[in-house]
Amino acid sequence: MKKYKNPSAAEWPSICLRPVQDSEALEQMVLPVFEDIRKNGDQAVRKYTEQFDKVRLDRLEVNAEEIDRAEASVSADLKQAIMKAYDNIYKFHKAQKTSRMEVETTQGVLCWREKRPIEKVGLYIPGGTAPLFSTILMLAIPARIAGCKEVVLCTPPDKNGEIDPAILFTAGYCGLTKIFKIGGIQAIGAMTFGTESIPAVYKIFGPGNQYVTAAKQVATRFQVAIDMPAGPSELLVMADDVADPSFVASDLLSQAEHGADSQVILVSTSQNMIDEVENEVSRQLEDLPRKALALRAIENSRFVYFNKREDALGFINEYGPEHYILCSREEDYYLDGLINAGSVFVGNYTPESAGDYASGTNHTLPTQGYAKQYSGVSLDSFLKSITFQKISEQGLQNIGKTVEVMAKAEGLQAHKNAVSIRLRHLMKKQ
Amino acid sequence: MKKYKNPSAAEWPSICLRPVQDSEALEQMVLPVFEDIRKNGDQAVRKYTEQFDKVRLDRLEVNAEEIDRAEASVSADLKQAIMKAYDNIYKFHKAQKTSRMEVETTQGVLCWREKRPIEKVGLYIPGGTAPLFSTILMLAIPARIAGCKEVVLCTPPDKNGEIDPAILFTAGYCGLTKIFKIGGIQAIGAMTFGTESIPAVYKIFGPGNQYVTAAKQVATRFQVAIDMPAGPSELLVMADDVADPSFVASDLLSQAEHGADSQVILVSTSQNMIDEVENEVSRQLEDLPRKALALRAIENSRFVYFNKREDALGFINEYGPEHYILCSREEDYYLDGLINAGSVFVGNYTPESAGDYASGTNHTLPTQGYAKQYSGVSLDSFLKSITFQKISEQGLQNIGKTVEVMAKAEGLQAHKNAVSIRLRHLMKKQ
Repeated sequence: MKKYKNPSAAEWPSICLRPVQDSEALEQMVLPVFEDIRKNGDQAVRKYTEQFDKVRLDRLEVNAEEIDRAEASVSADLKQAIMKAYDNIYKFHKAQKTSRMEVETTQGVLCWREKRPIEKVGLYIPGGTAPLFSTILMLAIPARIAGCKEVVLCTPPDKNGEIDPAILFTAGYCGLTKIFKIGGIQAIGAMTFGTESIPAVYKIFGPGNQYVTAAKQVATRFQVAIDMPAGPSELLVMADDVADPSFVASDLLSQAEHGADSQVILVSTSQNMIDEVENEVSRQLEDLPRKALALRAIENSRFVYFNKREDALGFINEYGPEHYILCSREEDYYLDGLINAGSVFVGNYTPESAGDYASGTNHTLPTQGYAKQYSGVSLDSFLKSITFQKISEQGLQNIGKTVEVMAKAEGLQAHKNAVSIRLRHLMKKQ
Repeated sequence: MKKYKNPSAAEWPSICLRPVQDSEALEQMVLPVFEDIRKNGDQAVRKYTEQFDKVRLDRLEVNAEEIDRAEASVSADLKQAIMKAYDNIYKFHKAQKTSRMEVETTQGVLCWREKRPIEKVGLYIPGGTAPLFSTILMLAIPARIAGCKEVVLCTPPDKNGEIDPAILFTAGYCGLTKIFKIGGIQAIGAMTFGTESIPAVYKIFGPGNQYVTAAKQVATRFQVAIDMPAGPSELLVMADDVADPSFVASDLLSQAEHGADSQVILVSTSQNMIDEVENEVSRQLEDLPRKALALRAIENSRFVYFNKREDALGFINEYGPEHYILCSREEDYYLDGLINAGSVFVGNYTPESAGDYASGTNHTLPTQGYAKQYSGVSLDSFLKSITFQKISEQGLQNIGKTVEVMAKAEGLQAHKNAVSIRLRHLMKKQ
């Protein structure tokens, strides 16, 4: 780990630096696959599935029988956990619903705003070593609350052409019916252009490896929106002497096990805490099955000591962590001053993993410092706002001149005319 | 104009087609300018200003004296109009404020959400033939309400190195202080990387020509967010026999005068209305100063007749217009069934230009069918949401097992440990 003592504000950006990805080269890989899928549809998707996932599929869509089989094979314990998490996530996202907003800005000028679901959305769930069924909850639940009409799920098959039962059970439990055994670039391409089997969607959500991330970026050139740009997962812990060093170490390690490029940062105003956490990390690391992965992330981790809380807070906002655990006797100070973060975990009994799975908040969050300008996924990610205005005869008389004067000053005569012709009509009527 | 009668749903996509821009070629122009600005800062910005705007500037920033001078030269009428528009826009955007949202998802598991301003935002205002001071209102007002700390405005200088007084007055009235005489690609590049004079920002807003649009797209590769992808402006009017054909024609022309690539669409369930509007368009076109521009847009316009309202509604949602004027005896039917649109103007006395300037709604709206997945600019465009959770000892006991079971099933042992270590600690305490 790298250690810093009271680094000056000028040094913060370099300490906060994330690994840079060569997106250019990746995008060059994505484009021909996209072109092929656009032209050849399912046939191209099958080809890449054979090439990348090493499996030949006749049918790309998961059928009801497969979902039934998955349901039978998931343990009762896991089902119950998924259902409990579902309930909490549902409650937190349902509470994000807003009602129609209406203002009469000037007498006779009624303006309002209503939200509508994005009709067609695509969810991508990675396969590989860990079946991320928890991400289905995080994406499918708000999609359902929003009322999205078509929700497509793509996830890569294993070498036998199967999907992990926990993924199928969770998808079924969330009411998803269009589930496809497609992964990687070809999944994003299929949802971008649509094929014979896979519907095109308007917005694509979900995590993925660097190929999927690059494919999502490329998809935005073809009239598709994405949830947010993505990078390796991150955790920053701010812990002073009220924190328990063994808890802090367990949190840092839970982040580190995601992979060698995981970002792990400890900020403290207590040198003693930093030393104790360091010892605890070494101790706990020994027992981890993913020890090798975690060790590399820990080697890249940064432990930063500040003797002034103003600097600690400034540094945290400069970093803008995806996950931020705060365990401090000055909790209110750090909460009130927080500007940039994805999701915050407050106190000794709020590990990041609680939010990853079951507290109710969403775990699809901005990384790479994007918390400075992006929010995590929420109900609003599946909605869009439409504004409305209805102006009465009196209302147009009240704001007509304003519009005429401004339109003329912008050199837009026809904009002015659209008001003038109506005002003249009203004059005649009187 | 192109006329269609009861086109089948299969034909809608081709009728709804927008002009395609060769973004690839434009981006290749943008990249070297960006690279130069990143390396050489103000010096590069000055070079491109000389090259593209034909003016040599020593000082890039507008000073207080220039704003005072502008204020003195804007007519009282125009000032009053700007202030009236300001009030309406302020009211509508202020009403978009939401309060902190809090849910106890499980006993002892408190989750909440708060919004924070994006600290640094950049506004781009085009120069050229029409000084779009109205767009300053649309962007600066929500930025101020949101509480953005740094609001940077860039707008191109004329050949004398001057900015239109209406732009400077409006910017001053909105409380903007960092105003730069920079346009085009170099403005977007400067706000992306920052230079000696111009601060880097986290999100860039505002309209522009195809170079600015391409530069904004390229900026997103460098950790900057943008308001939305942009294309030529659009208007769709749905008018049946309660509409006034002269009003409808004036609205279509107000859209058409934006430029030859403006999208102008009339949908009607009344053939008579279509014929009358066509006549009125020819008549009103004669008197327009921007006749040549408008004529070309009108030539590209599409007049679509449907004998069934279900088809009319389906077509409108397929198009997803930026601006949508609705003047129908079946107003509620069309409003309730609306899914995709940027802003809607309801009734005979609600011309689009009212919303462009002064009704209170925002005029920065999704074009190109992006209304299917994007909202127009709103207060939320200048904010981001942070989620929080605080779990009590009891709360962790309530959801701990759920987290442990799910983490284990996803193969993430350290995620499980972060909960287990705390639960063991609580067991010992009891």
